[in-house]
Amino acid sequence: MKKLRYGQIGGTLNAFIGAVHRKAIAIDEMCTLAAGCFSSTHPEANDECGAHYGISPDRIYPDYRTMAESEAARTEDRLDFVVICTPNCTHYEIAKAFMEKGFHVACEKPLCFTSEQAARLRDLAQKKNLLTCVTYTYTGYNMVKLARQIISEGRIGRILDVKGEYLQDWLLDKAGDHTEKESTLSVWRMNPEFSGISNCVGDIGTHIEETVSYITGLHVRRLSAVLDTFSQELDLNANILVEFDSGAHGCFSCSQIAAGHYNGLVIRIFGTSGAIEWEQEHPDFLKVTLKGEPTQILTRAAHTWGHAADLNRIPSGHPEGLTMAFANIYREFAGAVISGRPGDYPTVEDGLRGVKFIEACVKSSKNGGTWVEI
Amino acid sequence: MKKLRYGQIGGTLNAFIGAVHRKAIAIDEMCTLAAGCFSSTHPEANDECGAHYGISPDRIYPDYRTMAESEAARTEDRLDFVVICTPNCTHYEIAKAFMEKGFHVACEKPLCFTSEQAARLRDLAQKKNLLTCVTYTYTGYNMVKLARQIISEGRIGRILDVKGEYLQDWLLDKAGDHTEKESTLSVWRMNPEFSGISNCVGDIGTHIEETVSYITGLHVRRLSAVLDTFSQELDLNANILVEFDSGAHGCFSCSQIAAGHYNGLVIRIFGTSGAIEWEQEHPDFLKVTLKGEPTQILTRAAHTWGHAADLNRIPSGHPEGLTMAFANIYREFAGAVISGRPGDYPTVEDGLRGVKFIEACVKSSKNGGTWVEI
Amino acid sequence: MKKLRYGQIGGTLNAFIGAVHRKAIAIDEMCTLAAGCFSSTHPEANDECGAHYGISPDRIYPDYRTMAESEAARTEDRLDFVVICTPNCTHYEIAKAFMEKGFHVACEKPLCFTSEQAARLRDLAQKKNLLTCVTYTYTGYNMVKLARQIISEGRIGRILDVKGEYLQDWLLDKAGDHTEKESTLSVWRMNPEFSGISNCVGDIGTHIEETVSYITGLHVRRLSAVLDTFSQELDLNANILVEFDSGAHGCFSCSQIAAGHYNGLVIRIFGTSGAIEWEQEHPDFLKVTLKGEPTQILTRAAHTWGHAADLNRIPSGHPEGLTMAFANIYREFAGAVISGRPGDYPTVEDGLRGVKFIEACVKSSKNGGTWVEI
Amino acid sequence: MKKLRYGQIGGTLNAFIGAVHRKAIAIDEMCTLAAGCFSSTHPEANDECGAHYGISPDRIYPDYRTMAESEAARTEDRLDFVVICTPNCTHYEIAKAFMEKGFHVACEKPLCFTSEQAARLRDLAQKKNLLTCVTYTYTGYNMVKLARQIISEGRIGRILDVKGEYLQDWLLDKAGDHTEKESTLSVWRMNPEFSGISNCVGDIGTHIEETVSYITGLHVRRLSAVLDTFSQELDLNANILVEFDSGAHGCFSCSQIAAGHYNGLVIRIFGTSGAIEWEQEHPDFLKVTLKGEPTQILTRAAHTWGHAADLNRIPSGHPEGLTMAFANIYREFAGAVISGRPGDYPTVEDGLRGVKFIEACVKSSKNGGTWVEI
Repeated sequence: MKKLRYGQIGGTLNAFIGAVHRKAIAIDEMCTLAAGCFSSTHPEANDECGAHYGISPDRIYPDYRTMAESEAARTEDRLDFVVICTPNCTHYEIAKAFMEKGFHVACEKPLCFTSEQAARLRDLAQKKNLLTCVTYTYTGYNMVKLARQIISEGRIGRILDVKGEYLQDWLLDKAGDHTEKESTLSVWRMNPEFSGISNCVGDIGTHIEETVSYITGLHVRRLSAVLDTFSQELDLNANILVEFDSGAHGCFSCSQIAAGHYNGLVIRIFGTSGAIEWEQEHPDFLKVTLKGEPTQILTRAAHTWGHAADLNRIPSGHPEGLTMAFANIYREFAGAVISGRPGDYPTVEDGLRGVKFIEACVKSSKNGGTWVEI
Repeated sequence: MKKLRYGQIGGTLNAFIGAVHRKAIAIDEMCTLAAGCFSSTHPEANDECGAHYGISPDRIYPDYRTMAESEAARTEDRLDFVVICTPNCTHYEIAKAFMEKGFHVACEKPLCFTSEQAARLRDLAQKKNLLTCVTYTYTGYNMVKLARQIISEGRIGRILDVKGEYLQDWLLDKAGDHTEKESTLSVWRMNPEFSGISNCVGDIGTHIEETVSYITGLHVRRLSAVLDTFSQELDLNANILVEFDSGAHGCFSCSQIAAGHYNGLVIRIFGTSGAIEWEQEHPDFLKVTLKGEPTQILTRAAHTWGHAADLNRIPSGHPEGLTMAFANIYREFAGAVISGRPGDYPTVEDGLRGVKFIEACVKSSKNGGTWVEI
Repeated sequence: MKKLRYGQIGGTLNAFIGAVHRKAIAIDEMCTLAAGCFSSTHPEANDECGAHYGISPDRIYPDYRTMAESEAARTEDRLDFVVICTPNCTHYEIAKAFMEKGFHVACEKPLCFTSEQAARLRDLAQKKNLLTCVTYTYTGYNMVKLARQIISEGRIGRILDVKGEYLQDWLLDKAGDHTEKESTLSVWRMNPEFSGISNCVGDIGTHIEETVSYITGLHVRRLSAVLDTFSQELDLNANILVEFDSGAHGCFSCSQIAAGHYNGLVIRIFGTSGAIEWEQEHPDFLKVTLKGEPTQILTRAAHTWGHAADLNRIPSGHPEGLTMAFANIYREFAGAVISGRPGDYPTVEDGLRGVKFIEACVKSSKNGGTWVEI
Repeated sequence: MKKLRYGQIGGTLNAFIGAVHRKAIAIDEMCTLAAGCFSSTHPEANDECGAHYGISPDRIYPDYRTMAESEAARTEDRLDFVVICTPNCTHYEIAKAFMEKGFHVACEKPLCFTSEQAARLRDLAQKKNLLTCVTYTYTGYNMVKLARQIISEGRIGRILDVKGEYLQDWLLDKAGDHTEKESTLSVWRMNPEFSGISNCVGDIGTHIEETVSYITGLHVRRLSAVLDTFSQELDLNANILVEFDSGAHGCFSCSQIAAGHYNGLVIRIFGTSGAIEWEQEHPDFLKVTLKGEPTQILTRAAHTWGHAADLNRIPSGHPEGLTMAFANIYREFAGAVISGRPGDYPTVEDGLRGVKFIEACVKSSKNGGTWVEI
């Protein structure tokens, strides 16, 4: 099978998330890295990364605009898609530049800063018939896919309530009482210039929204949010009451100041016939309760079926981990690029909905926690 | 040591909660049941219960008014306190009747139906210098007391966020789509005449409020609540954003339709220096995280100190269970009756705050989830 | 219903296990404490305990022999049974004395020190048609009874393997490298005079044997044991390979030096059609796996049936704890005394088998871990 | 950095473990697949796999002997090492062939069938100064490395007892009572021709032995084993008492008939100052108890130090999974090949010890569970 060619913007050898994208893409051996602008500010890091991957030097670019134009002008060995792993504040302009040149695009989340930008990218994708992928990682886990399947099969009935939480503690110092200048902890996420209007909701709250939507098919139609900044510029903690388009209610909580939590995304769905619970830190398991029966612990590969089972890579009891979830998203995206058929991965529509969710949370909180329609 | 004498109103031999009160009181062998009106509607059940406990027949009463008057008139073997385990709708009048005659009172929660009633009982207790105990069971657990101690010692710092939830599933059928008359499931809790203005928040949401207040010393000052009735008269599910008097925020959720949950009271407190988590279904353990350190699992009797340690009854690793928590409350209440010194148990003040919390939740939800001051 | 009368030997007000017996008996209000010799060495503690329970002073005895004779001579208010909570080294002679006088006997485990003694008590019980109860607490838990029922119904098929472990850490200091005299830790359990030939196996290993036998109906027919004394006189740790009368094998481990374990009795049974797992520290839950299906978490009162369900006392999700398990044993024993019909509680047969198990373990270990028939 | 070149024997595109090796090697981008004999029986699968990886057709070989000779004869682009993923029964001859030609070798476990073979390979490696890696996967997990570090730092003191278990259920049908021919379940692992003298101990019991040795530095010096075949030719279940060279005892259990277990490798180490527990199905966590203190849950990347911390690849709370553990082994092995310095990976010495362990277990069990020296 011929491999796809992709180009990457952002993600030098030392960058965390850029490397995760490459390793995840590499898992299924469907794609080859063929061009890149890994850094526009550090030419040597840019070259070093290109050399490491054996990229032809003429396809290592000093900036994304040059890359978009040059690659678009190629008649052979043309890129099949590009991957954007740059700082959030540049996603929009880079995605737009490549989409305008007709490239399919995979982009780190958040897709962009405003719903207007997101809508423009959505329109551009429709107009040019382009595939877009926003890498909301957690939708790639098998057991998240199984949860979606169980609900779509009606096994837990009509959804009555949804609890979503995503707790971390790495910014706990920011919420403390220290009056001294904490020079060592200048986090770009706390800077609106790089993060936009929200830190915590934008970074992790949006994962709750996307994972819940993915699993349930429900979308938040209005919400009441309280964001806590603890005297910082941006939010570090949030509690959000939500109402879905079905009329069901629920509660989302996200935090970067919750001591003892590292990447605690937990989704619980309660229906008229049963309930489902999934924890990201133990991703190969899914708790399923059917009404009146004992809770069951479903294990990946032992108790998976449908699409979730198709994506099992290693036997039950052997943890697959985050990189495999990431790989699942790229397998589906690359499959769609190859086949032209829809795949199971988040798109610009999810990215747009995510930005609207963030905007609504910030607006509600600024108005004292009033309800805001999305 | 001379034993206290108590009388009981409600709680025949077959009644669940009345028996729990008696067994809990019996654990510490500090009190003797000396009088009662166990049923005003079934004289034979009333007599049977009295006989079972060897109560003198002249102290088994047909109704609470007769009991209050007759017992108040006694000059010897006088009751030291009474225990009220009747249906919720009768708590107020019974408590008032005995308090007016000068008896200390222990009462099942909720104390009464309205904050006006609760305030009157509070005033009455103050005026007559009476001790009152509202049996919010969960404050009796050792590890809840340890949580309170840890926070009071400042070990987790200033509180930043509180999550409280209490999930059950025994009324799940009520939220279903069945249109037929479910005659077999006519639950008194769903009837406002017996339950007052709220079912779920009144029955279990109020336990969240009390347990959080007990552990943290924080009180809710305003809240935004969404109660779901699912076409029933009263609520079966609720999500509540709360703001405490300290300015900290949090989220409370209670439900009787959450499949797979039986008595899932879970309290999590996040502070500037650490966090605490306690689960009622595994009450002998407390998770404590100090900032930057691994989460610790504290075990009752192995890692308890202060007042929590004083109340250990059996060695570590041997589960004490709910009845012991109940017994702890009565040990403290009886101790206060004997000594005249304050004890560690919920009082009419807690009962009053609980009723106000319920009223605020119902009001907020009726107004579309707007914020309501308490 | 008329209450039974019982007498107690051992267990002053300050003694731990004596009080547990009394509280457990009190739970079901079927029996009254009517006579006792709570201490033969401290007359004032003896009297104090008797007075606390309102026992007639003429039925408080200076020693067990006087008690046995005097009580046997009574024609009215005669004791229905006696409870023995004295140090292990005295169980045999006390049990024998009361049985010879025709009293039913409940005795703390271990029943006695040698299988010869145990066999003599067994024969005595048969000859005099007496009921005997050896209070192996853990067989009293509802979920242990449910495990037994599930296996007896054939739900997990023929048993292939059994894992039993009981881990504690309270004697960890004894296994250390300290050469100084640890005067503060002179534990009677480490003294053969009080404990017999084994400490760890005798104290807790025997609970594994009894609980496994109770649940499965299987009895150990031969074993290979390694007991570790760590330079002490008696064992502190043991690993035991077992072969049951069915031919199935398994492994038992017990320890008092396993850091982080408090009362960690865990039983796992693996059969041809499924498996069962129970943990004493979370007694209200039972993990059941049917072949090929996800593991289920059964919860007391929510998913109990048969005899286990009969013994539910409080609703699901409310932990019952150790005292209730103890009460279950006494409820069954008292019921048998009343009805004359067999009850669900461990008897002198279990006590005899327990002593044989201890003897075999010690013999095997002394012979370098060779296999020993029971 | 120049990449190493490796060749692979076994592992077509459809083969499970061969693919895991390639993906794990690919993670760190240190090595390129340059030659192979992926199948000696299916030439087209051999060619297909080679083509997929862009291997020059002249380096795709029909059999391992041709490959060893041809690759040894090359003067440029010479292979740095070979990876053996063929059926167990061929490991020895293939490893020997390549080692005799001077190639470093990585080999799936078990290294070979007899301790004589293993000793010959060990001698060969010494004589020719070759690096050997036996891919005992579980030693690659960060938290296993942290466990080793904690023990080497003396934090839990002198080791008193070790519990190791590895439970699966995928061969449960083999232990059943079905008399009919189960034609659909003809498992090569149950065939001595392919698996050698043991199935269960050889496949998974040996992982317990290796992981315990890796973590503790202790080696089993004698053991007493009971292997259950349940009327099959080879063992499906085993319980093993072990004595380490330090004199400490412990117990190992492995099973392929333990319903509800998928890949349940659990290691617990008890020392004079504390204890450690690790579960493969939740590999990013390590339970550590220091004497008298509450058990702590250490989390990968949040609470790792030393070599374990060096190998963290993604942030705490994001599960790394089995492939990363595998990658850690290859990172270390490739690093050793490059640097000539010792690396942190299992070698032919571990492979030899593993085979001796299997032989001792089988010998002990055949002799009725007698003790056998290793």
